[in-house]
Amino acid sequence: MKTITLNASVTASNDRDAQALREKLNRRGVLLINVMSAAGSGKTTFLSRVISDLPEVSIGVMEADIESDVDAKRIEALGAKAIQVHTSGMCHMDAGMTAAAVDAMEGETQLLFLENVGNLICPAEYDTGAQKKLMILSVPEGDDKPLKYPLMFRESDALVITKIDALPFFTFDMEKCIERVKKLNPEIRIFPVSAKTGEGMEAVEAWMVEALREVKSSRDS
Amino acid sequence: MKTITLNASVTASNDRDAQALREKLNRRGVLLINVMSAAGSGKTTFLSRVISDLPEVSIGVMEADIESDVDAKRIEALGAKAIQVHTSGMCHMDAGMTAAAVDAMEGETQLLFLENVGNLICPAEYDTGAQKKLMILSVPEGDDKPLKYPLMFRESDALVITKIDALPFFTFDMEKCIERVKKLNPEIRIFPVSAKTGEGMEAVEAWMVEALREVKSSRDS
Repeated sequence: MKTITLNASVTASNDRDAQALREKLNRRGVLLINVMSAAGSGKTTFLSRVISDLPEVSIGVMEADIESDVDAKRIEALGAKAIQVHTSGMCHMDAGMTAAAVDAMEGETQLLFLENVGNLICPAEYDTGAQKKLMILSVPEGDDKPLKYPLMFRESDALVITKIDALPFFTFDMEKCIERVKKLNPEIRIFPVSAKTGEGMEAVEAWMVEALREVKSSRDS
Repeated sequence: MKTITLNASVTASNDRDAQALREKLNRRGVLLINVMSAAGSGKTTFLSRVISDLPEVSIGVMEADIESDVDAKRIEALGAKAIQVHTSGMCHMDAGMTAAAVDAMEGETQLLFLENVGNLICPAEYDTGAQKKLMILSVPEGDDKPLKYPLMFRESDALVITKIDALPFFTFDMEKCIERVKKLNPEIRIFPVSAKTGEGMEAVEAWMVEALREVKSSRDS
C-alpha cells in the first residue's frame, strides 16, 4: 500500500484545477465520488460494503487522513486498490491534492472514491474535481445536523444516512431529518442504510452504477 | 512560504490573546472549559446533564456554531445562561472570538463552557484562552479516533467517552481506546459516561468542581 503526503496547492485557482481534473476523469470514463462526513460516521465501513457488493466494478479508494493508515489497510484487505493520503494537517482535500492522489493510483479503476478528511465543515468548501459528492450522516450524530452544517447538505448530490440499525437506541427523527435536508437541497438523493446489515445498500449502489454508466456513455458519445 | 509565515504570525498573536484572556478569567475567579468534539458526539446533551447535576454552580454556555441556534435554546431551556456564537463560516474558535464571547455573557457565572464548533481537527490547533480543555468522543465514532486525530487527544486535559449506554450495539474496544489515548497523552483524565442514564457523570463533575476550586483559591491566595 502506498502512502503519499500532500500539501495544499496555494497558488493555482482551486476551481480551475477541479474543472481540469473533472474533464480528465470524464475523458478516461472514470467516476470519482467525493465522500464526506464527520469523523466516525462510518465512511470506511460503508465503502467496504460497496466494494463487497459490487465485485464486477473495479474500485479504488483514496483515504485522506491527517495521520495513520488504518482505513487504507481495511480497504486493501477487501482486495480493492487503496492509497493513503496524508494531508499535512489540512482539514480537507483540494483539487490539486486530489489530482495528485488520482495520479498516484496505479492500475485501471472504473470507480474511484475519495474518502475525504472526517469533518462536516471544511471539505464542503472545496471542489475536489469529483463528478459526484456523497455525504454520510450517521444516526447517532442526530437529526439536527442539517440545521448546523447546511453547506455540506446543500453541496451534496447524495446523502447516505448510515447506522439505521441503531435507530431503536437513539432519538433520531428520520422524517424530520429528511424534511430539513430537502429544504436545503430539493434535488438531493437520500439513502437510509445500514452498512452492517446491508439494509438499503442496493439503492445507493444502483445510484453509483447509474452515475458510472453516465460517465462512460458521455465519453463514448 | 507565504502561507506558513501567515500561519505563524496569526498563531503568535492568538497565543498572546489567549494568555491575556486566561489571566483575566483567573483574576475574576471564573473557570472556562473549552469543550471540543466531532459533530454529533453529544456535546450539548453532556453539558445539559452537567447543568442539571450542579444546581449550586452558576453555569454559562457559549455555543459556537456556523449556523442555527438550536443548541443555545436547549441550554437556556434548562435555566442556564447561554449565548449563541456564529463563527462566520469558521471551523474553530480562536482567542479573540472567545474573549468577545466571554464579554457578551451577561451576569455572574462561575463556570463557563465554550462549546466549540463540531470538528476534531481545527479546534485542536487554537488556544482559546480557556484554562481547561475537555474533549468528547462518543462510542459510535469508534475506538480508532486517537490514531486518526491525535492532536486533540494530545492537547486535552480530560477526555469524556460518551454514549457508553450504546456499547452493546457497537464494536468499541474501551481498553484499546484508553491505551491509545494514554500513549498520546499519559496525563489525560478519562471519564466514560452516559449523559442519558447519568452513569459516570459524577466523576467528571467532581473534576470540574475541583478545577473551579483551584481557580478560586489561586485568586484568593
